[in-house]
Amino acid sequence: MARIVMKFGGTSVAGLDRIRNAASRVKAEVDRGNEVAVTVSAMAGETNRLVGLVTDISRLHDAREYDVVVSAGEQVTSGLMALALQSIGVSARSWLAWQLPIETDDVHGKARIQGIETQEMIRRFGERQVAVVAGFQGLAPTGRITTLGRGGSDTSAVALAAALHADRCDIYTDVDGVYTTDPRIVPKARKINRITYEEMLEMASLGAKVLQTRSVELAMKMGVRVQVLSSFEDTPGTLVVDEDEIVEQQIVSGIAYSRDEGKITLLGVADRPGVAASIFGPLADSSVNVDMIVQSTSADGKSTDITFTVGKTDFERAMDILKRLQSEIGIKGIKTDQNVVKISVIGVGMRSHAGVAQAMFRTLADKGINIQVISTSEIKISVLIAEDYTELALRALHTAYGLDTD
Amino acid sequence: MARIVMKFGGTSVAGLDRIRNAASRVKAEVDRGNEVAVTVSAMAGETNRLVGLVTDISRLHDAREYDVVVSAGEQVTSGLMALALQSIGVSARSWLAWQLPIETDDVHGKARIQGIETQEMIRRFGERQVAVVAGFQGLAPTGRITTLGRGGSDTSAVALAAALHADRCDIYTDVDGVYTTDPRIVPKARKINRITYEEMLEMASLGAKVLQTRSVELAMKMGVRVQVLSSFEDTPGTLVVDEDEIVEQQIVSGIAYSRDEGKITLLGVADRPGVAASIFGPLADSSVNVDMIVQSTSADGKSTDITFTVGKTDFERAMDILKRLQSEIGIKGIKTDQNVVKISVIGVGMRSHAGVAQAMFRTLADKGINIQVISTSEIKISVLIAEDYTELALRALHTAYGLDTD
Repeated sequence: MARIVMKFGGTSVAGLDRIRNAASRVKAEVDRGNEVAVTVSAMAGETNRLVGLVTDISRLHDAREYDVVVSAGEQVTSGLMALALQSIGVSARSWLAWQLPIETDDVHGKARIQGIETQEMIRRFGERQVAVVAGFQGLAPTGRITTLGRGGSDTSAVALAAALHADRCDIYTDVDGVYTTDPRIVPKARKINRITYEEMLEMASLGAKVLQTRSVELAMKMGVRVQVLSSFEDTPGTLVVDEDEIVEQQIVSGIAYSRDEGKITLLGVADRPGVAASIFGPLADSSVNVDMIVQSTSADGKSTDITFTVGKTDFERAMDILKRLQSEIGIKGIKTDQNVVKISVIGVGMRSHAGVAQAMFRTLADKGINIQVISTSEIKISVLIAEDYTELALRALHTAYGLDTD
Repeated sequence: MARIVMKFGGTSVAGLDRIRNAASRVKAEVDRGNEVAVTVSAMAGETNRLVGLVTDISRLHDAREYDVVVSAGEQVTSGLMALALQSIGVSARSWLAWQLPIETDDVHGKARIQGIETQEMIRRFGERQVAVVAGFQGLAPTGRITTLGRGGSDTSAVALAAALHADRCDIYTDVDGVYTTDPRIVPKARKINRITYEEMLEMASLGAKVLQTRSVELAMKMGVRVQVLSSFEDTPGTLVVDEDEIVEQQIVSGIAYSRDEGKITLLGVADRPGVAASIFGPLADSSVNVDMIVQSTSADGKSTDITFTVGKTDFERAMDILKRLQSEIGIKGIKTDQNVVKISVIGVGMRSHAGVAQAMFRTLADKGINIQVISTSEIKISVLIAEDYTELALRALHTAYGLDTD
C-alpha cells in the first residue's frame, strides 16, 4: 500500500468525459489498495474566463476580490470530481482550501502555502475515502481566500504530498512526460525517464511548461518524488528525483527555449561606477524581471553599451522607465529587438564535464547562427539568437549532444 | 440614514455592464448616507450551467457536492460586484456564506437559514464599507457549503435584512414590480404599489415568479419590508408590507396562473374509508406534490372518481406509482390531461366580501369556459380550465374585477 497524490491539470478535466477518465485513473489506484488524495485544476479555459471578468470590470483590481472570483474554477472541478468518483463506486469528498484548511500567507494572487491540516483527511483514508482537494487556492490568516499564482495547482499537489508524507506525487497532464526538447519542433526528441530536481527547475523556468517552477522548488526542498505523466495514455511518465537516484547521468539532459523575452540595448552609457545600479534599480522597483545582462568592454574608457533581456509582458513598462532615465543618467540611444529566442542546454553532468559550452558555440557557428548574448550557470548554458533560427538551432543541438532517438 | 439590503437577481448581474449598472444603484444609496448590504445571485444562466454539469456527471448526485459546484456562481458575482463598487470609489468587500457565517441546517440543496453573524459587517458599516454577500449559499454545522434551493438569493436577502434589522429589503429584478396579472398576456395589467405578505405569498406560489415563496414567508414572519423593483428603470416598485399599512384595500389584488400542473383522474375507485390515504400516501412518500383534489359524489355508493393535479415535473413519477396501485386497490381506469391551466384570483379583501367566487364562475361561464376543478382558501379562489382558454380567462377576469388600467 502506498499513499499518493494525483494532480489533474486543466486539460485533464476540460470536460465531463475527461473528468470521468481521470476518475477511472483514481479508481485504479484505490483498487490497488492505495490511499489517494486528488488535486484538481479548473477546467481548461475557465481560469482565463474568470480572470477576464475581473480585469474587464476593474483594471486595478483588489487582489483579494480577484482571488474570490478566480478560485471558483477549482471549487467547481473538485465537486465534479468527487461526484464522478462516487458514481463509479469510489467513496470521495471535496475539500476546499478553507475547509482543510490549506494555510497561506496573505499575498493575494501569488500566496505561499504555510501549512496543510491533514488529520481529518488521513482519518478518512482509513475509511477508504478519497480526498479531492481544490488546487490553486488557500486560506489567508485574515480568513480570506488566496490563490497561488498561475499553475499553482502543481504547487498545491506537491505541498499536499509533502504534508501527507506521500510516497509519490503524480502530475497528470496532456503530455506523457518531460522531453529532451519540444517534440513539436524536434521530432527526434526523447522522453526523459528520470530527471533531477535541479534540471527540472531549469527546464521549467526556461520555458518547458510541464510543471510550475515553484512546485519543483518545493518538491526539491521537501524531497517529494514527482512523476509527470499523461492522463490520456497508459505509458510511464518522467520521474523527478534526487540526483543520487539517477544511475547513468547524461551530460546534457535537455534543451529548452523561450520566446518570452525581448532584448534591449542601451548605447553609449557612461562607464562609471553606479551606472548599472541606476538602470536596474528602477526596473526592479517596478517589478520588471531582467534576465540576461552583458556589458561590452568600453573602447574609450568613457562609455559602454549594455544589453539585457526582459519578459515581453514587461517590455513596454521597461521602455517607459528607460526613456525617463535616458537624459537623467546619459544614455545615447536605445535599441530593441523582440524577435529573439533564448536557447538553453541543461544538465547536472556539466558540473564534471568540460566542453559543453564549446560544443554549443561550435554547433551554432557551423549552422551560421550568430550568438547575441550568453549566460551560464552551474548546470546550464543559455544563448540568445534571432528567433528565425529557433528550429534549426534546437535540432542541431539535439543531435550534437547525442539526444536524438534512434 | 437608513440601513438597507439590496438584492440583485441573475438578469441584473448577467454581464459586466449590468453589474456596473447595479453598482451605480448601490453607490446612489451610499451617497444618500445609507448603510448598505448587497446580496447577489449568480450571473443569469450560470446556475443552470453548473446544475447541468452536476446532473450530467452523476444522475443520483451527492447533494453536498452539488452545493459545492452550484454555489460557485454566487461566489464569482460577489467578487465582481465588490470590484465594480471599488472601481467607482465605494468601499466594499465580498462575503461568502462561510465567512460571515450564514448558518443553515444541513439539508443540502434546500437548506434553511438558522442565523447570520452580522457583527463585523455592522462594524464596517461604521467605516462606510458596503458588504457584498453571496446569495443562495450557507454553511452547515458540518462545515460544508449548503445552498437554499432555486431562487434562494431572495431568501438570503430577506434573512440578511432581518438579521441586520434593516429598514428595507430592495429586490432588484428585470420587472419593475408585481403586476395585477402577467402583462404579456393582459396588456391592461397594472403595477401594484402595495401588496400584503399573504397576497404576495399566494401570487408567488401560484406562478407569479417575481419572488421566491420562501422569501415572502420569511419576510412576513420577520416583518421585513420588501420592495420589488427594476434594476433597469427608475420607477418605484411594489412594496410588500403588512395589511395595516395598506389603506385602500382592493377586494381582488391580482390574478395568477400556472401551467406547471397536470390533471389526473382515477375512475371507479372503491368508495370506502381509507382509499384516499392509500392513494395519496404513496404519492407523498415519493415526494409527489398533490395540489387540487376533488372527489365526485358516489352515484351507486360503491365507487367514485377522484381528480387531482400534480406538478408536471412529478407527473411521470406519479403515474408510475398509480399504475402500480391500480390493481392493488382497485382503480377501473386512469385519465390524464396535461393541457390545463390553474387560474387564481387573490385578495385579502375576500375575507370580508362575499360574491368573489360567484363573479369568477359567472365571468368564465359567460365566455363559455368550463371549470374542471375548483379549490379555495381564505384569500384565493383557484380553478382548473383547459389551457387553450388561458388568455381569454385572464383578460375577462381582469376586467370583471375592475383591475384594468384606464
